[in-house]
Amino acid sequence: MRTLNVALGDRAYPIHIGPGLLARPELLLPALKTPRAIIVTNDRVGPLYLERLRATLEGAGVSVSAVELPDGEAHKNWQTLNLIFDALLEGRCERSTTLIALGGGVVGDMGGFAAATYQRGMPFIQVPTTLLAQVDSSVGGKTAINHPLGKNMIGAFYQPRLVLADTVTLDTLDARELAAGAAEVIKYGLIRDPEFFVWLEDNLDRLLAREPEALAFAIERSCRNKAEVVAADETEQGERALLNLGHTFGHAIETGMGYGEWLHGEAVAAGTMMAAELSRRLGWLTQQDVDRIGRLFERAGLPVWGPALGVERYLELMSHDKKVEAGRLRLVLLKSIGRAVLHGDAPAEAVAAAIVARCR
Amino acid sequence: MRTLNVALGDRAYPIHIGPGLLARPELLLPALKTPRAIIVTNDRVGPLYLERLRATLEGAGVSVSAVELPDGEAHKNWQTLNLIFDALLEGRCERSTTLIALGGGVVGDMGGFAAATYQRGMPFIQVPTTLLAQVDSSVGGKTAINHPLGKNMIGAFYQPRLVLADTVTLDTLDARELAAGAAEVIKYGLIRDPEFFVWLEDNLDRLLAREPEALAFAIERSCRNKAEVVAADETEQGERALLNLGHTFGHAIETGMGYGEWLHGEAVAAGTMMAAELSRRLGWLTQQDVDRIGRLFERAGLPVWGPALGVERYLELMSHDKKVEAGRLRLVLLKSIGRAVLHGDAPAEAVAAAIVARCR
Repeated sequence: MRTLNVALGDRAYPIHIGPGLLARPELLLPALKTPRAIIVTNDRVGPLYLERLRATLEGAGVSVSAVELPDGEAHKNWQTLNLIFDALLEGRCERSTTLIALGGGVVGDMGGFAAATYQRGMPFIQVPTTLLAQVDSSVGGKTAINHPLGKNMIGAFYQPRLVLADTVTLDTLDARELAAGAAEVIKYGLIRDPEFFVWLEDNLDRLLAREPEALAFAIERSCRNKAEVVAADETEQGERALLNLGHTFGHAIETGMGYGEWLHGEAVAAGTMMAAELSRRLGWLTQQDVDRIGRLFERAGLPVWGPALGVERYLELMSHDKKVEAGRLRLVLLKSIGRAVLHGDAPAEAVAAAIVARCR
Repeated sequence: MRTLNVALGDRAYPIHIGPGLLARPELLLPALKTPRAIIVTNDRVGPLYLERLRATLEGAGVSVSAVELPDGEAHKNWQTLNLIFDALLEGRCERSTTLIALGGGVVGDMGGFAAATYQRGMPFIQVPTTLLAQVDSSVGGKTAINHPLGKNMIGAFYQPRLVLADTVTLDTLDARELAAGAAEVIKYGLIRDPEFFVWLEDNLDRLLAREPEALAFAIERSCRNKAEVVAADETEQGERALLNLGHTFGHAIETGMGYGEWLHGEAVAAGTMMAAELSRRLGWLTQQDVDRIGRLFERAGLPVWGPALGVERYLELMSHDKKVEAGRLRLVLLKSIGRAVLHGDAPAEAVAAAIVARCR
């Protein structure tokens, strides 16, 4: 087992990474405030892992209830969130009861937002069961739900007391979801860790074959990169924005196609290619760099072209992005492979041209 | 104008109190991050003060939009909150746009919760227009909405950047609402400021007659008491819980009667009498103390008896309270007039007897 500490002062927390962690009560118990917990999961992950986690907790004397949400990004909304609140209130959960999110990013985001807002905040544990959630949404305290007019528009910054990334749960992940997680892993290499990018070029096949050692290395390296950024900038004023490489374009793809059509990581991959293309047009990346990035995404089975929504529709959707300030679109771009920058002055024509060039 | 600073480190903010403040842009402008604001109000306060506030801001070059919610506690729910989110997204408000809540406690709680969660947090200003909101909900950063199974069950701690308490707005407040605000004013005397309690015994009539000097004194003294408590205990672990004198019983009254039947301050007054009666039964207050408290509430036109819901119903409703921990009811009681304590060991029979004794 590898353990990483996210340094956030009095809200610091550990991330444990390794196989079989769901069966280890001694990792969970220190994060509980009282011996009461409610597990939030979905109807895909629940049948696979809920009873395993419940048995671990109950075996250690914890009283456990559970709520199963419908699976998928399309359900990341008020209605589904209210299922959690109903369960919390009907089960008479207290402010000191611990909410444990068992599932992918959607479960983590919704469970975290429910924990952040139920009685103005209850203890929260993340047990991410997808590669994407293990390397991305479980680190950094971002929680949210979607609004019909925009993704993640309603949410809170709220830190978990513990993250438990059990790599065994990735064995049941389908290949498309594994690839979507790999998109975020590759992102860390691109924005701040050129050595890791090279490691991925050398080891991507081992990762996709779910070799335990390769998985654990990549998850820890990704989490460490993210944890360093988050610790330096908890509420996304500066460096943290760099984590959104490909996300402004990517959110436009997700919203434009309808939530759930494209996986988040798929949209980020195609969006990152737009950011890379724009970086090339600004004279920062070479065509060789852009091709090298595209090749790695393609080897992972990820899309490197956006859907043909029309450039006006892209720009319209991007203007709703949270990174817009004073009407100005701020984009994360690449100075080189391994160095991202936040840029607010890209000429509108270059942005449009980059979108057009990377759509098919 | 009186100004009080709420000391919360990097989230410290000023409370300005006095007549005519809505017309003073120089007080508002320093709290805006960009020259864009959205005013959240309701259909009772909006017609009275929205245009005045809008004119002040627009005159200073601020671009202003507005959303009017239906008035009343019965609308403090998801559906109404979503009207704010719809307005924010349809108006393309950014994360840097300032949300200004203009109205009573319901508008402040909902506007604050929307500000806390829209894009995970936008700048927030409170312009409370009721006595209750000026002395209570505008100080301390509590925001929330109700759930059918419990009041204020979903919310966040979120500090405003500025509170503007314009005492002129109290001229249009009806007498019942003024009295409800006086209940919270009296509460500050009871929990930690015996001198203020005596001042209120001497000056209540001036307050109810809306004498500007008496209002300003009482608002400032109340806010100062609350600000001192909140600064010492922002997230309600200890002393802050004392602010909830009468609230556990009071919430049971509000929920049991249906939201909106009893005003919050009315329920707090009757609830405080239950807490006082229980304190007498524990040997802390004398019968004379209880009578003295009741007399002051009665002079303010407030109820001193709870509705006859039945003691089981009271206990059932109280068990949903946020102050329940590990199944144990923690109550705020009075050691004397001017000194409250948090008590988790009141015998169940004494609690029941106090409820029965103060119901009619």
